[in-house]
Amino acid sequence: MSAFRILAGDTASSARQGTLKTPHAEIETPCFLPVGTRGSVKGLEFDRLEEWDCRAVLANTYHLMVRPGIETIRRAGGLHAFIGWSRAILTDSGGFQVMSLASRRVLSEEGVEFRAPEDGTAHFLTPERAMELQSGFGVDIAMALDVCPPFPAEREEVERACRLSQSWAERSRRAYCGPGLLFGILQGGTHEDLRSRAAGPLAALDLPGYAIGGVAVGESKQAIRRVTAFSAGLLPSEKPRYLMGIGTPADLLESVRAGCDLFDCVLPTRNGRMGHAYTRAGEVTIKHERFKEDLTPLDPACRCPVCRRHSRAYLRNLFVLKDFSAPMLLSIHNVYFYLDWMRTIRAAIGAGTLDKLQAPPEEKV
Amino acid sequence: MSAFRILAGDTASSARQGTLKTPHAEIETPCFLPVGTRGSVKGLEFDRLEEWDCRAVLANTYHLMVRPGIETIRRAGGLHAFIGWSRAILTDSGGFQVMSLASRRVLSEEGVEFRAPEDGTAHFLTPERAMELQSGFGVDIAMALDVCPPFPAEREEVERACRLSQSWAERSRRAYCGPGLLFGILQGGTHEDLRSRAAGPLAALDLPGYAIGGVAVGESKQAIRRVTAFSAGLLPSEKPRYLMGIGTPADLLESVRAGCDLFDCVLPTRNGRMGHAYTRAGEVTIKHERFKEDLTPLDPACRCPVCRRHSRAYLRNLFVLKDFSAPMLLSIHNVYFYLDWMRTIRAAIGAGTLDKLQAPPEEKV
Repeated sequence: MSAFRILAGDTASSARQGTLKTPHAEIETPCFLPVGTRGSVKGLEFDRLEEWDCRAVLANTYHLMVRPGIETIRRAGGLHAFIGWSRAILTDSGGFQVMSLASRRVLSEEGVEFRAPEDGTAHFLTPERAMELQSGFGVDIAMALDVCPPFPAEREEVERACRLSQSWAERSRRAYCGPGLLFGILQGGTHEDLRSRAAGPLAALDLPGYAIGGVAVGESKQAIRRVTAFSAGLLPSEKPRYLMGIGTPADLLESVRAGCDLFDCVLPTRNGRMGHAYTRAGEVTIKHERFKEDLTPLDPACRCPVCRRHSRAYLRNLFVLKDFSAPMLLSIHNVYFYLDWMRTIRAAIGAGTLDKLQAPPEEKV
Repeated sequence: MSAFRILAGDTASSARQGTLKTPHAEIETPCFLPVGTRGSVKGLEFDRLEEWDCRAVLANTYHLMVRPGIETIRRAGGLHAFIGWSRAILTDSGGFQVMSLASRRVLSEEGVEFRAPEDGTAHFLTPERAMELQSGFGVDIAMALDVCPPFPAEREEVERACRLSQSWAERSRRAYCGPGLLFGILQGGTHEDLRSRAAGPLAALDLPGYAIGGVAVGESKQAIRRVTAFSAGLLPSEKPRYLMGIGTPADLLESVRAGCDLFDCVLPTRNGRMGHAYTRAGEVTIKHERFKEDLTPLDPACRCPVCRRHSRAYLRNLFVLKDFSAPMLLSIHNVYFYLDWMRTIRAAIGAGTLDKLQAPPEEKV
């Protein structure tokens, strides 16, 4: 029996509503996973996420393997026990962070050697090692090790990334021993032919889910949306599709319409810490002078604990004065807003009204 | 009818348990007020404070008068509305911060002129202005404007501070028009004779409560405790006694035994942000190497949301990596710990067992 069940589909788009059963949660899709890089969703208590019926978070294999390391996590009884979260966890494979963060990186057929900039320690990440880590963590959704080419990149580099990603997906599949679901990752940059060519052999591995990788690495928003829609169409429709690292509320709606089911993004927490709040009317940059006397909440229709209590004027004052609570409060609002937005999207698919749903504008308020 | 009711007294000490009725809350005493300098208790949501039955917080008149200023707060409908907290608020008068923070300070009979280092704006704080501000805020407990001498100080300087504080308390009393309770402040540094001499005329003003000011400004812990006990004995026993700006859990117990009823201190939040956690076994400095593999909570007997979920090893890893959640989680624990400690003290007085209550050691774990 498949872990993924599609319960409703949209007639006007490729959107679908469903559930994904993992060892620790039944995830309602489309679903946004708050990012908990080192096992904390920055600025939020897990109690809040539970209260808001958040069923899954993302953590980064790369960060966790460098510190505290797999041994500490194993001794704690796995990642759930170590971080104190008993619902689902998805970990990326570490491939993306190695490419974007690590120094003295050497890529070979075997894997990728690198030094962690945090402490200079040497690591060798192979598909087998990535699986050993994620199995040791005991996560609900593990990701195959892939190679994510930068943007822009020579076509040859993207071709090599596709070839290695396929070979590593096969090795990941052989090496992974649970307890979660292993997802493969489709690469190919902005080249539709390369993505098409990569999708077949990847789908043939019959993994429980597939991710669209290598998007939002520097290309235009138009390119991101085009590649996302094109890639989603290449992946098996009966499997959950996970769009990695994206995006704004409008991006999420657009990608749901393209047929994507799972999402993660640092925007709500990172932007919250920087003073940007998502609202139904657009983005509020709280430091702006024009909010100085604004006694309305960030979003008058929002039911989050911040909007229920605090005005823009209050939050602006805290932010201008660099009060520690300010980035925390905006992060709380933003994550609530994202989870609520996904709930709205799911309900619209179920009710057959997704075509009428309008995303918040991406402009500033 | 007096706002303060004593419900139980300790036979072995001057401790008493009671209630203080203010416009927004019935405060159970002895009570610790978390510090919300600019109207936020750093790192904590007000929802948490309500959930833990916290009935009162402190905010700083000085910070609020500089930013956002009284006009914004008035337009919001008062300080409760502006910060989103509907229980009791106590504000200090601004005197202490002017003395410790402001530059180009000129003290006269009339008041104190200063420039705010935040933005260079000039302010003139008089007893009448301090009352206008606190009345405009609409706080539950307002403090008379006082002069807090530094430590060490010439005896003459302390004498002048006492004289001005008495004169300003009289003017504060005439000027204050509610809606809260006005408290006077006893000064006198470490000089028992000066405190004795100041207490009589201050008590004669028959204010609804009195604070012990000018302690913990640089003197030894021994001197703090001696001056606190001596000062408490000088203040009317039927009025609530508020010990300003103190202290550790052990200081609180000691000061309760000396007859103090209200407390505020930045320690739980400031130390939380610095990585220090209060526990029944002493202070945990979470960054220490020895907590690296420690899978126990900060305090195994603590029921706070952090101790219910997270281990020292997890918190240490976040702290070492400067994760935004780390100072937040320690602040949450510390404030919970303080509120819980006061609950324990109140229960012990009520049960007649305060003499057997032992404070957490002040040593490091």
